Amino acid sequence: MEKKRVAIVGYGNVGKAALEALQAAPDLEVAGVVRRSVAVVPRELEQVNVVTDIKALGPVDVAILCAPSRQVPALAERLLSQGISTVDSFDIHRSIPDVVESLDVVAKRCGAVAIVAAGWDPGSDSVVRALLEAVAPKGITYTNFGPGMSMGHTVAVKAIAGVEAALSMTIPLGTGIHRRMVYVEVADGYDFADIEQQIKCDPYFVNDETHVVAVPSVDALKDMGHGVQMVRKGVSGCTQNQLFEFDMRINNPALTGQILVSCARAACKQRPGCYTMIDIPPIDFLAGSRRELIARLV
Amino acid sequence: MEKKRVAIVGYGNVGKAALEALQAAPDLEVAGVVRRSVAVVPRELEQVNVVTDIKALGPVDVAILCAPSRQVPALAERLLSQGISTVDSFDIHRSIPDVVESLDVVAKRCGAVAIVAAGWDPGSDSVVRALLEAVAPKGITYTNFGPGMSMGHTVAVKAIAGVEAALSMTIPLGTGIHRRMVYVEVADGYDFADIEQQIKCDPYFVNDETHVVAVPSVDALKDMGHGVQMVRKGVSGCTQNQLFEFDMRINNPALTGQILVSCARAACKQRPGCYTMIDIPPIDFLAGSRRELIARLV
Repeated sequence: MEKKRVAIVGYGNVGKAALEALQAAPDLEVAGVVRRSVAVVPRELEQVNVVTDIKALGPVDVAILCAPSRQVPALAERLLSQGISTVDSFDIHRSIPDVVESLDVVAKRCGAVAIVAAGWDPGSDSVVRALLEAVAPKGITYTNFGPGMSMGHTVAVKAIAGVEAALSMTIPLGTGIHRRMVYVEVADGYDFADIEQQIKCDPYFVNDETHVVAVPSVDALKDMGHGVQMVRKGVSGCTQNQLFEFDMRINNPALTGQILVSCARAACKQRPGCYTMIDIPPIDFLAGSRRELIARLV
Repeated sequence: MEKKRVAIVGYGNVGKAALEALQAAPDLEVAGVVRRSVAVVPRELEQVNVVTDIKALGPVDVAILCAPSRQVPALAERLLSQGISTVDSFDIHRSIPDVVESLDVVAKRCGAVAIVAAGWDPGSDSVVRALLEAVAPKGITYTNFGPGMSMGHTVAVKAIAGVEAALSMTIPLGTGIHRRMVYVEVADGYDFADIEQQIKCDPYFVNDETHVVAVPSVDALKDMGHGVQMVRKGVSGCTQNQLFEFDMRINNPALTGQILVSCARAACKQRPGCYTMIDIPPIDFLAGSRRELIARLV
């Protein structure tokens, strides 16, 4: 069987992890990496085709988009228009239905497949939430994140004047309630109490219990570990008190990169259109023959 | 939207639970229940059409098969041949790939859909196993069952001469290893030690740590609760030690009945052919519009 050619667009933490997962996939081929500049190429990319325009990579079946979420819809639309399928981990939850609808039109018109929101939340957690509703339709699912670093919250803190470096940790308190522990390096001439106040009033933090701590080095605190605990207590038929729990402790970019690659594989198996992970048969994420997968997993 | 008409074939513990789940489904209609005899009809079926031949129910979109696993393939084939889609919780793991292949031919020929192995294991656990391989392709998944009653093991014990009543409990010891706790009522004139020896030599028990206990009443020990703990430690890309755990504590027939009903809904959304739960987009198990489900779950 010919291997599908997959490109990685963007090479931050997630792009790097996606490349590692792609290199480990037995049925996929690295078409190359697309970056804004090829002036400085890290050592691990020496054997990889690194370009600034995806057209320079020759035929590409799927592009894995590792750009910031805000840039993803336009980037996906541009690649889909070239007939290249796309996979992304777009994570602005409230915008997902609209992005799905608009990319669906483009993907169908161009005979390509888009898989959006293919990370762990949204992404694999969404699959678990859907499955838990299927097995116990009435009830409440709580998604408890962390402990782990929140990228969105960290970026919001960094935007405040006088913050030289920042880290916002998400701490789960149960029932979907979270505490924010924010660590900041304060620049000379700025007042910590003032920065603390600005953080606590920021829309990202105003609804959560937030603690701000000044530290000499934010870098010394950073780890890429994250986690989630999902809990559902629900009703199957008319039987109450069915209990479910899903837990994971993971390296955040590594998990996201791997899920993007598994979704790149699945993209090659769908009809043209735009999908989220709950729209895709789980078997399509996996390499191997259907019979062997059914024998081993079902 | 017109409601799909769903029949239940077989009315044991699972059939009863499937009826309850079907009655709770907003988008499905109870076509009726098919039993071997309609001589005695339990009170909860007084408002339900109970027949011995499914043809007496008028048009049926999907039949939920709540017969013993050994009878399922032939029963499914017969109904599919009538153009009726089928859903079952066939649980003889090693036979599933062959059943899928043979029912696929019949289903496609008759323009119907078969979903096999649609319980919790095989079934929803299979979906979790597939998802965990997608997010961490290298590693080991352990499925730990119980504590809960094993139907297959209990039936094997009941077949031994001198056993008046039996209950085999599955106790998880971790890493997929299980202890069997077998409770028996011994008939007059039979030797407990002899029965104990026969149980321990039975193929169902010979490979597991098995304890046999004589009790005055097996009925007093029975509860329908069961559970599972699935654990995976694996590799995403080249990042080791990604940790996942899925746990549930559930009423066994209630969960199976609910999953059968959610799969009956999914059966109405697939193209003709035979499927397992890992072949189906999770969103298809759920009632509601796609946009609303994506907005809420993704």
